Amino acid sequence: METPKAVSKHKHIVLTSHPGKSGQKPIPINWGESDPIKRGPIIGTVRNANHRNVIGTHSGSYAVYRALAIASGALQANHRADLTNTSPVVHIGPHPSWSDANKIVCLDPFGALVGGSYTTLYEQGHDIFPTIAITKAHINMPELQDSIIKGRLQVDGKILKNNGSLVVTKVAIDPVWYLPGIAQRLKINESDLRRILFQQTGGMFPELVTRPDLHVFLPPIGGTTVYLIGEVEAITNPSKLLAVRVHDECNGSDVFGSDICTCRPYLVHGIEVCIQTAQEGGAGVIVYFRKEGRALGEVTKFLVYNARKRQEGGDSAEAYFTRTECVAGLQDMRFQELMPDVLHWLGITRIDRLVSMSDLKYNAIISSGIEVIERIAIPDDWIPEDARVEIAAKQAAGYYTPGEVPDAVTLAEIKGRGLGD
Amino acid sequence: METPKAVSKHKHIVLTSHPGKSGQKPIPINWGESDPIKRGPIIGTVRNANHRNVIGTHSGSYAVYRALAIASGALQANHRADLTNTSPVVHIGPHPSWSDANKIVCLDPFGALVGGSYTTLYEQGHDIFPTIAITKAHINMPELQDSIIKGRLQVDGKILKNNGSLVVTKVAIDPVWYLPGIAQRLKINESDLRRILFQQTGGMFPELVTRPDLHVFLPPIGGTTVYLIGEVEAITNPSKLLAVRVHDECNGSDVFGSDICTCRPYLVHGIEVCIQTAQEGGAGVIVYFRKEGRALGEVTKFLVYNARKRQEGGDSAEAYFTRTECVAGLQDMRFQELMPDVLHWLGITRIDRLVSMSDLKYNAIISSGIEVIERIAIPDDWIPEDARVEIAAKQAAGYYTPGEVPDAVTLAEIKGRGLGD
Repeated sequence: METPKAVSKHKHIVLTSHPGKSGQKPIPINWGESDPIKRGPIIGTVRNANHRNVIGTHSGSYAVYRALAIASGALQANHRADLTNTSPVVHIGPHPSWSDANKIVCLDPFGALVGGSYTTLYEQGHDIFPTIAITKAHINMPELQDSIIKGRLQVDGKILKNNGSLVVTKVAIDPVWYLPGIAQRLKINESDLRRILFQQTGGMFPELVTRPDLHVFLPPIGGTTVYLIGEVEAITNPSKLLAVRVHDECNGSDVFGSDICTCRPYLVHGIEVCIQTAQEGGAGVIVYFRKEGRALGEVTKFLVYNARKRQEGGDSAEAYFTRTECVAGLQDMRFQELMPDVLHWLGITRIDRLVSMSDLKYNAIISSGIEVIERIAIPDDWIPEDARVEIAAKQAAGYYTPGEVPDAVTLAEIKGRGLGD
Repeated sequence: METPKAVSKHKHIVLTSHPGKSGQKPIPINWGESDPIKRGPIIGTVRNANHRNVIGTHSGSYAVYRALAIASGALQANHRADLTNTSPVVHIGPHPSWSDANKIVCLDPFGALVGGSYTTLYEQGHDIFPTIAITKAHINMPELQDSIIKGRLQVDGKILKNNGSLVVTKVAIDPVWYLPGIAQRLKINESDLRRILFQQTGGMFPELVTRPDLHVFLPPIGGTTVYLIGEVEAITNPSKLLAVRVHDECNGSDVFGSDICTCRPYLVHGIEVCIQTAQEGGAGVIVYFRKEGRALGEVTKFLVYNARKRQEGGDSAEAYFTRTECVAGLQDMRFQELMPDVLHWLGITRIDRLVSMSDLKYNAIISSGIEVIERIAIPDDWIPEDARVEIAAKQAAGYYTPGEVPDAVTLAEIKGRGLGD
């Protein structure tokens, strides 16, 4: 382990640290323990190398901005968070899944409980920071106001207010990866996972290879946000209905309303189903994952758009996936097998209304042991015209559809707009 | 340098590589050269260590998902992108700023030109991948439709279509950091920047320290998206008007319409001003940066929300910034000094209408040599009630306002909603 000096003041650098050197041992993490004290807190501090019990540090990719802030002098390297009044506004868990090392592997189930469970350790000087934050909000989306006007949604004054505002509990979750569990999901051994993560990122975090004693990794990627609609206790109450949409980021549609895909319309439809379910006494859950462009990133996504629109014969449903494969080497990099963890963290065991047509998501959810009663497709008249290419290609590839699966002739016929139009 | 073996097949790992070992030299990058061949391409490949001329790899934080895809067997480690038909749909640049090593330091000005400038190198087997992609889209936001109905926006059939769709050119940009230039912006020396970036991220990329010969870093952070409205040539035509909004991601407002801030309303207002300016023969530019929660990340943001709403006296404008400082150690981590680079990449030298009240953004833009004619505040009736706290606090701290700057008495009076409401 490294020396406990404040890293900002000293120019001595330990490039790769190995276990077993002299120094204080960090608090061990016993993933899957039901008692948070026995499990041990996640300590991603860079202020005290002897306390670190993970690879990487907090805030996902924003750790890079934090480093810039320290480099520029705007932030003191020894700043320690004052967490007064920051604790969750509603209690979530613990649920049985929290103590199952296989059910949750990519977030810390105790991530929101820093103030409660780890107060003593915090007071002893351990630099413990939440990886989950839970707050409340009022959200107001123009489409929901339109749904009220059209009579699809009813104002109830509590969940959905007169002005169209929706009352939600919202949760931000930073990634915390338990590497043995991630390896199991990928069906490879942990040492191969560690080696490939190191090599294929261009040499990020040698500790992945040199510190087999550290099993938890805080990767520099985007996190997850959860919007809870209705009473939180209804989520786990078997006598109440639960609606869920698991949504992967698509900035072009979610924010800007691009008409080449169904992302924002389907998200809004999911929120509508959640509101209706909450108004029936149940609850609704929207999970928003930062996995832009099927986790290929937006540059690759735009390159694929160009290739789709320019290919011989124009943009067509039959060649929808091929163009992504040419550029990226595969259709999709989201790895949905990790997605259900957040549902297990919420204690979900049954979804009455799954607002998703994705077979990848559905299979991941039911394989993880969650029952799905009904799958809800996006209403046909919510699909933008240019997004017909995407939806038909996906239906032909196995997406759930209440209607007919498009055949080869249909796929060849469904065309998108050209680049010049 | 490392051995040229394909990294996926071999378990031999070079933990830290140093310059000067045997092996082929990578193509040098001469940042600021006007000729893309002399400048040299950005080669972030992990397939051939001898070709790598940067630290890190492509796609920002999505490199981690790429590694997972290879680990799981879904993606072949030796996949090389087929870039057929992916080239930009409109030409941008070159502009004089492209050959000024100080004007652009956090993106590769030649990042979109892979197919053109570097075709020979690509055909010789160099694994060159674009860091910029340029496509076209139609976007449709409900607020714009409402503006048409209310007569604030006029349909012209070309920029703004009958169905409310807006025709845009959009650009995705991955981060490419020229470390000497970044250090200069931060006003520290390059070796300190490299050391702090390594240490404060928990040991990410030892090559930051061991490879002083590599000056370019592809950090694992989110990228930038640019929406261009109107004719691209108007952006740099001094006889035509230019409107610009530089917007930092706020998922809770931009997507979900949270009423605690003005982010989405101000973004929509910016788009409206861009449309009007384009319809007057000019152009509009929206830049969207992935810097969630002032680059503090969403977990910190939600912790701060709770602290604001629960503090003694409730959420108030006078204590708005203090709560962020307690949790995060500073008010803001966006480091706006890097922001103008994308404007210089577009060749912008004058902004007629800057749709932003931020003094940090304004100062960064004018300090970088871009003239700003007019600053446009968000219309008062577009501010959600609960966001009065934010806007008043920012005005008192130096934000541009066409009205009165709130005094201490006013700041103490402006209150937000409680958590229970």
